[in-house]
Amino acid sequence: MFPLIFSALLLSLFSTSCSLISTSPHPLDSLTPDEITAIRRVILASPLGSSSGPLSFHYVGLDEPDKPQLLSFLSNPTAAPRPPRRAFVVARAGKETREVYVDITNSKIISDSTYGGIGYPIFTLAEQAAAVSLPMSYTPFIESVAKRGVDLSQVICSTFSVGWFGERKKGKRVLKVPCFVAGEAANFYARPLEGITIVVDMDEMQIVQYRDRVQLPVPKAEGTDYRQRTKSGSVGQPEGTGFEINGNIIRWANWEFHLSYDVRAGAIISLASVYDGEKCACRRVLYRGFVSELFVPYMDPVDEWYYRTFFDEGEFGFGLWASPLVPEADCPAGAAFLDGYYAGQDGKPIKIENVFCVFQRYAGDVAWRHTEFGLPEGVIREVRPEVSLVVRMVAALGNYDYVMDWEFKASGSIKFGVALTGLLEVKGSSYTHADQITGEPHGSLLAENTIAVYHDHFITYYLDLDIDGTDNSFVKSKLKTVRLASSDSPRKSYWTVVKETAETEADAQVDVGKEPIELLIVNPSKKTKMGNDVGYRLISGAGTAGSLMTDDDYPQRRASFTKKQVWVTAYNKSKKWAAGLYVDQSRGDDGLAVWTQRNRLIKNTDIVLWYTVGFHHIPCQEDFPLMPLLTGGFELRPFNFFESNPIIKSPPSGLLPSWFNCTFSS
Amino acid sequence: MFPLIFSALLLSLFSTSCSLISTSPHPLDSLTPDEITAIRRVILASPLGSSSGPLSFHYVGLDEPDKPQLLSFLSNPTAAPRPPRRAFVVARAGKETREVYVDITNSKIISDSTYGGIGYPIFTLAEQAAAVSLPMSYTPFIESVAKRGVDLSQVICSTFSVGWFGERKKGKRVLKVPCFVAGEAANFYARPLEGITIVVDMDEMQIVQYRDRVQLPVPKAEGTDYRQRTKSGSVGQPEGTGFEINGNIIRWANWEFHLSYDVRAGAIISLASVYDGEKCACRRVLYRGFVSELFVPYMDPVDEWYYRTFFDEGEFGFGLWASPLVPEADCPAGAAFLDGYYAGQDGKPIKIENVFCVFQRYAGDVAWRHTEFGLPEGVIREVRPEVSLVVRMVAALGNYDYVMDWEFKASGSIKFGVALTGLLEVKGSSYTHADQITGEPHGSLLAENTIAVYHDHFITYYLDLDIDGTDNSFVKSKLKTVRLASSDSPRKSYWTVVKETAETEADAQVDVGKEPIELLIVNPSKKTKMGNDVGYRLISGAGTAGSLMTDDDYPQRRASFTKKQVWVTAYNKSKKWAAGLYVDQSRGDDGLAVWTQRNRLIKNTDIVLWYTVGFHHIPCQEDFPLMPLLTGGFELRPFNFFESNPIIKSPPSGLLPSWFNCTFSS
Repeated sequence: MFPLIFSALLLSLFSTSCSLISTSPHPLDSLTPDEITAIRRVILASPLGSSSGPLSFHYVGLDEPDKPQLLSFLSNPTAAPRPPRRAFVVARAGKETREVYVDITNSKIISDSTYGGIGYPIFTLAEQAAAVSLPMSYTPFIESVAKRGVDLSQVICSTFSVGWFGERKKGKRVLKVPCFVAGEAANFYARPLEGITIVVDMDEMQIVQYRDRVQLPVPKAEGTDYRQRTKSGSVGQPEGTGFEINGNIIRWANWEFHLSYDVRAGAIISLASVYDGEKCACRRVLYRGFVSELFVPYMDPVDEWYYRTFFDEGEFGFGLWASPLVPEADCPAGAAFLDGYYAGQDGKPIKIENVFCVFQRYAGDVAWRHTEFGLPEGVIREVRPEVSLVVRMVAALGNYDYVMDWEFKASGSIKFGVALTGLLEVKGSSYTHADQITGEPHGSLLAENTIAVYHDHFITYYLDLDIDGTDNSFVKSKLKTVRLASSDSPRKSYWTVVKETAETEADAQVDVGKEPIELLIVNPSKKTKMGNDVGYRLISGAGTAGSLMTDDDYPQRRASFTKKQVWVTAYNKSKKWAAGLYVDQSRGDDGLAVWTQRNRLIKNTDIVLWYTVGFHHIPCQEDFPLMPLLTGGFELRPFNFFESNPIIKSPPSGLLPSWFNCTFSS
Repeated sequence: MFPLIFSALLLSLFSTSCSLISTSPHPLDSLTPDEITAIRRVILASPLGSSSGPLSFHYVGLDEPDKPQLLSFLSNPTAAPRPPRRAFVVARAGKETREVYVDITNSKIISDSTYGGIGYPIFTLAEQAAAVSLPMSYTPFIESVAKRGVDLSQVICSTFSVGWFGERKKGKRVLKVPCFVAGEAANFYARPLEGITIVVDMDEMQIVQYRDRVQLPVPKAEGTDYRQRTKSGSVGQPEGTGFEINGNIIRWANWEFHLSYDVRAGAIISLASVYDGEKCACRRVLYRGFVSELFVPYMDPVDEWYYRTFFDEGEFGFGLWASPLVPEADCPAGAAFLDGYYAGQDGKPIKIENVFCVFQRYAGDVAWRHTEFGLPEGVIREVRPEVSLVVRMVAALGNYDYVMDWEFKASGSIKFGVALTGLLEVKGSSYTHADQITGEPHGSLLAENTIAVYHDHFITYYLDLDIDGTDNSFVKSKLKTVRLASSDSPRKSYWTVVKETAETEADAQVDVGKEPIELLIVNPSKKTKMGNDVGYRLISGAGTAGSLMTDDDYPQRRASFTKKQVWVTAYNKSKKWAAGLYVDQSRGDDGLAVWTQRNRLIKNTDIVLWYTVGFHHIPCQEDFPLMPLLTGGFELRPFNFFESNPIIKSPPSGLLPSWFNCTFSS
């Protein structure tokens, strides 16, 4: 339903591109299946491959080129040297964690070292599958199941990370394995076998601890299912895609960016640039952005629950648990789908079909409008519909599903959407009515024998903004009330803006909502014609909760970045993960809060913005058995980046940016 | 593109209705043109009509029936007496404000009294048109225009309310009339004739004060226009409306509500009820809701600007300035449009075509989903698209356009969207570059000679919630950190919920974002099966700014409700307007903050929730000449209202609620 005139103009734009990323293959492309296979071959042929005991691959990802080298190459791909294609691999062999850098192009190991510090890598799917099968043949567990009158064939177990609770000795690589009853309903999370603790040593792959502490009723299956038995129908969006995908590079309207998959981070958006129709030039906005961590602590200190303080990305992998998207359901008709590849435990490539979708969104809203009644020649009504481009992935980490949207607008805004849905993690209980509750329930009684435990969700983004270039500053525009003397004005007060440029990392930690403030990333060496610093503004949406645990609590020490929504750090290629590189059983001695203790200078230099979307979750009846979407997020909006509204010249059909008059050189 | 199965099922639902509002004509219907004509006739025939001097109508609206009487009638429309059809009229005659209640059915005056207090009614369009023409023949102004080298034929004037700044004597009914230069661009707001003050006595309709204080450059017209010269194209949404409109009653999915127009409030949603598929019953949610005030104070204390502290609803009329909506631009294809009628200054009915639109929204999002990897029988992927119903109006109050959405979801949520767009109010200045600025600019320099002055937008909603009945309570669920003794658990802390039911109006004032808290409106006499209080939760979205003026500043005294986002009051039919009934030149002695000084009990009684969406606006280059949409709002979300997720049984096509198995009696 987009008119022909629009489509034709848009296609002509596609012949141009932002030169920064017009190269193929692109140095930031995700690892291909062939590359993953080659990496495995190189490692198996190395001394590490012939080490005694099984070798397992826990992380295989692109070791992105150094930023100066990449930017230099992209600015002149024909003359400048192409950055080497490298991989970073975390493997386990002989109960040791190995860090291996592989030169993919030349099929050789660059370095191979043992990591002896605290913490363990992401769990593989294969070892988790092995762990959950152990209880099925473990006699004490079989007896516990029988004692509860449950059929063992209906039992399903899961894998929960154990955390760290002040132990001085480095813990073994273990997982806890809570079990559930599936039966006739698919929603086994609603039917826990409460009171049982099983600990599995993941290197030995055996149960090393077992406890059946207390027997509580298994909640009923009735009313917990969510499946549709008869499939039918779909809803749709307007015809036509409106965007172009070349390899990993996506172009739409005035935007161009690179989209890649990482088994830990999920979607990575790189080199996002926006075309400026007044300057007839592509301008850099985001060098690299992704979800860095997802922290989900539960609030019940009882034996079977205290440790449930999941770092879903660093422990389990946000990309590893990405759900294949369902066409015309997860994404509207007309969406394009992309696949992702990760290395399985054995190092071989595994495909996640439809790991991302890309679609043009029209939600019936306007991009801008004005009705003018005040002119003598009659009423003016100018309205432009809002059409945007969405990149979506869904991470289905066990019971929860996170719908993650990157929405690009022709106005220059990027909106980051976080939407939570999925099943509640519940605790068995003897209660069948709220009147019976004595003491602290640590959750909401939502069905008979079913307490949905209080918890939080903290989604931390890494955003290496390069507004119009690499060197940026972080500015806090504080709104201050000024009191007037009575002789100055009939008014007694007004507010004004006091700008503070953050000098160091400590200056840049902000608890949003605590004071009236606007937050900007600016390029202090670039000005508008009027002399304003070129920049982008960070606007919080729903989801500004901060962690409420005490600072000395162990999970909080591991996730200490979750008390402030905003951090800004000096760029350092290796500092990507807010909770540190090795998160399983980590102790808070790596990550955002530790790095920033150095309190580096962050003024007019390459900086990274970290933003945490947070929700406290007091479950309610409507969340059971499966929660309707709860949305939050934030926006990065141009603020004195353009000289004026960049979509003021857009036609009534909505989308067309204002740069169709530019003559392109590329 | 909605499948046939969905449409067919939906139509069958339309044969049923929530009995509470199934009557036609409905006692809450907007005044019809015939009724407006009849009201005028009755008043003109009364002594008021023959009083000397002109009679002007400033507000003609439905005097809604008393709530108990209305609820009694609606619960049994055949037997109970129909509430009388009455109007409330505010008129001016002989420089006096008259309050007239008219019995429409019996064509008679119920009461007619003179209002002798502080403050004046909404300005009529006709008198504003008269006021802006005065300067064109006023010699000192003609000289001022000539002195600035401006062609008088290009000058356009506007009407700004004067506020109150501590004067003891009651002011005359005056307006200030700032003027602008239109010329070749339609955006005259960008080209102020700075430095001139014109005061018009609205009762005498003459200029009573004139001052040309300082001459500043008129900003250039270049780059300020926003009109499309060649019209073409449109974007569309899926076919089919999916909703039913009978008179003023709208039914969609599991929702039913009454929509009416008021010249002051704009859209009024009444008697919104949601069908509960488990109880097979309609359940009441919102008795009546509308925008009660819109306060926009500017932050420049200079002579021509200090008074710009607009109460756009109480002074100018949110419904009066509603913009006729443009099909396939303001609202997507498939939208239905409704007209509105108000009484002109002479009392005759005037039509606003397309004052509201109603449409089904599909933005490509999901309502809920889950991917289950954990079951032995294979992966489950259940996804339901999100389709919602939107009621939209746009108030174009001078330079700004407010896009106001009421979005109903099958999950039971109501989302309230406020989106700001339109033209900036700017101040002429001698500056042509930021480097020249000395002292306090009170705004952003966005173009040569153009400072966009700092300001705020506060949109205050009146929401008479009747959750499952009239008597409700307001509950603050405070999240409190609990420290654990080291012997209790390996954890050191957790958070829990401490519920406080507000006893009085003073307990119910909340500054959102200042502490971790969830806000609920509950019906304490209704419980879920598990024993939880039935309720709705208030969730803030973007736009939580509070006013920053000092408490003793005059505009702040008139808008003292804008320092806290949340207020709850005991229901009182006459207490509708947050800034009082007569807002022009008001002194803060009527309105929300005054009523609540009585500190009435609000526990388990009929209560009203007031919520203010607030934005501080530091203008940026992209806002010039016309700001791209900036959005905010909030959500009312069922919280233990249903027994479980009400859309868990919805089919893959999205919309169908879970109540299609109910047998209807109505």
